[in-house]
Amino acid sequence: MPHIDLPEGLPGISAGFTYRPETAKPMRELADILLHQPNSLAPGERELIAAYVSSRNCTTFCVLSHSAAATSHLGDPTIVEKVKADFLRAPISTKLKALLIIAGKVREDGKLVTEADVAAARALGATDIEIHDTVLIAAAFSMFNRYVDGLGTWQPSDPEMYAQMGKHLAEEGYTKPSIRQPVTTV
Amino acid sequence: MPHIDLPEGLPGISAGFTYRPETAKPMRELADILLHQPNSLAPGERELIAAYVSSRNCTTFCVLSHSAAATSHLGDPTIVEKVKADFLRAPISTKLKALLIIAGKVREDGKLVTEADVAAARALGATDIEIHDTVLIAAAFSMFNRYVDGLGTWQPSDPEMYAQMGKHLAEEGYTKPSIRQPVTTV
Repeated sequence: MPHIDLPEGLPGISAGFTYRPETAKPMRELADILLHQPNSLAPGERELIAAYVSSRNCTTFCVLSHSAAATSHLGDPTIVEKVKADFLRAPISTKLKALLIIAGKVREDGKLVTEADVAAARALGATDIEIHDTVLIAAAFSMFNRYVDGLGTWQPSDPEMYAQMGKHLAEEGYTKPSIRQPVTTV
Repeated sequence: MPHIDLPEGLPGISAGFTYRPETAKPMRELADILLHQPNSLAPGERELIAAYVSSRNCTTFCVLSHSAAATSHLGDPTIVEKVKADFLRAPISTKLKALLIIAGKVREDGKLVTEADVAAARALGATDIEIHDTVLIAAAFSMFNRYVDGLGTWQPSDPEMYAQMGKHLAEEGYTKPSIRQPVTTV
């Protein structure tokens, strides 16, 4: 049960966004730039970083929605599951593995990132802007996850709802609400 | 030394903001709404929450800049120091103490916030939107702190620089850069 009087029937962050549209606007814009707008990191790769950070923070709504968005981009639902389970053995590029190491450290504490972590990512082809965006995706999900959990939002686990949401996010991005009508709580 | 090729002479988050103006824009707007725009929580109270969360995350630039902004609002530099040292004994309202308990939990993990924490804040006069904004300030500084630390930004400790920055932030808010010219590294 939410800690404050959030709109009913809206899952996860959509309840907070509807409750306070003023703060929703820049948060949506930030997510759109980091995850959806053109970038040398593919949208599917950036969604994997978001899903991975959210899985380590155990924020159900963010894990399932960004796993679904990653799958919508990548086509294969097993990739994100392998990344969350053990990304070093997942079928992704070595560059993305190096970026996930950085993201995992930022999630814990930005001060844990070392010059060697960054040099390793660079040696595998990561550009400065890709390293910057990886740091900021991990930092931003440190915010989104805490916002979703700290408000005590409703976080359902219905796979079909997340599959639809992930498709919408992958196709339309983050500035248009994916859930226009409250869904029925069950 | 920064992990990527950030502009020289810009401290803390201003280096990241100058490097990537696209993401700086929504991040500045979010900070402005949460800390500067009209709210039933005074700007000085909201800056105390930002300084407190940043101090627990040990992010020098954010601690010193938001401590300076809080002091610029409150007039008395001892208040923010007492809040960072032991807020339960600081000369602030009991409502703000209850909100700082929530902020401290969100900083660690949003799931730690309990119904009892929220009920206590409400009993001391906190409104739903104040509780919402406290959760989001703590979540947003979980992002800002990680961004500043994760990029390995230059975080000087010159008190005069932060005093000027705090005055600018308190008076002008967060959408106008406080540092227009690179400052000299010493």
